[in-house]
Amino acid sequence: MAETKRIITIFLRLLALGATVSATVAMVTSHDSAEVLNIKFMAKYNTAPSFKFYVIPEAIASGYGLVALFLSRKSWVDGLIVIMDVLIAMLLTSSISAALAVGEIGKKGNGHAGWLPICDQVPKFCDRVTGSLIAGFAAAIVYLVLNLYSLHVVLAPLFPV
Amino acid sequence: MAETKRIITIFLRLLALGATVSATVAMVTSHDSAEVLNIKFMAKYNTAPSFKFYVIPEAIASGYGLVALFLSRKSWVDGLIVIMDVLIAMLLTSSISAALAVGEIGKKGNGHAGWLPICDQVPKFCDRVTGSLIAGFAAAIVYLVLNLYSLHVVLAPLFPV
Repeated sequence: MAETKRIITIFLRLLALGATVSATVAMVTSHDSAEVLNIKFMAKYNTAPSFKFYVIPEAIASGYGLVALFLSRKSWVDGLIVIMDVLIAMLLTSSISAALAVGEIGKKGNGHAGWLPICDQVPKFCDRVTGSLIAGFAAAIVYLVLNLYSLHVVLAPLFPV
Repeated sequence: MAETKRIITIFLRLLALGATVSATVAMVTSHDSAEVLNIKFMAKYNTAPSFKFYVIPEAIASGYGLVALFLSRKSWVDGLIVIMDVLIAMLLTSSISAALAVGEIGKKGNGHAGWLPICDQVPKFCDRVTGSLIAGFAAAIVYLVLNLYSLHVVLAPLFPV
């Protein structure tokens, strides 16, 4: 039973690690430029605060995900990991939500506010960002599952069998 | 000890309830209109998908917060509440992050994408949204504290004294 739990947890952590690393790399390497009315403009992840904020939590989650794989199995470490997992899940949720909100405006614009979509001008940038957001979304979901799983294990004594 | 825990939890839940209700009401009642070049335009929360998405989790959290105050103190209910609190915290974090990201563009615009700030045109709308976002942010923080507190209580046996 303890062995099964360990294997499921390691599998979920590896999934999450792959997703956060892909999200970080895809976002950081995204760029494209376009010329509109002779004015050249560059699209890069650091031109939008929400995309800049997106990279930091994804990188933190990648680092944490790697460390968590190798931590010793002492019981208080387990306790700390449950709490850290919840914090990382909230951080990832926050970053993916902000980036998705801005990405949605980039793709569809907002007619009410007069914001035009930019994806037609910088398609390569948009594709890369979309890929990164998919990976980031997957990472947030995996952390949610990981949390529900470890909470279920920790809280099991409270539930009637 | 159990009594102190109960009082702290109820206090945090009341704080969170107040914040989510204020956030919902302030966002739903926000509206303003402006005339630019003879074209009248309305700003309302439902003109931006992220603001629409913001209202739903805040309303759900308000309903849940009210119910959670009155639930019976059976141990399996406590276990369920720990899990629900984590889910609600993630939902609130997601909604406030998306709304903040769009609010930031509304306030400052984004020169790279050619998106102009709109707060000068619709100041009443912006003020109301800002108030709502502050309440929503407070609610997310209170839920974070609530989670750390109940996880600390639940996980206490794992930590060395």
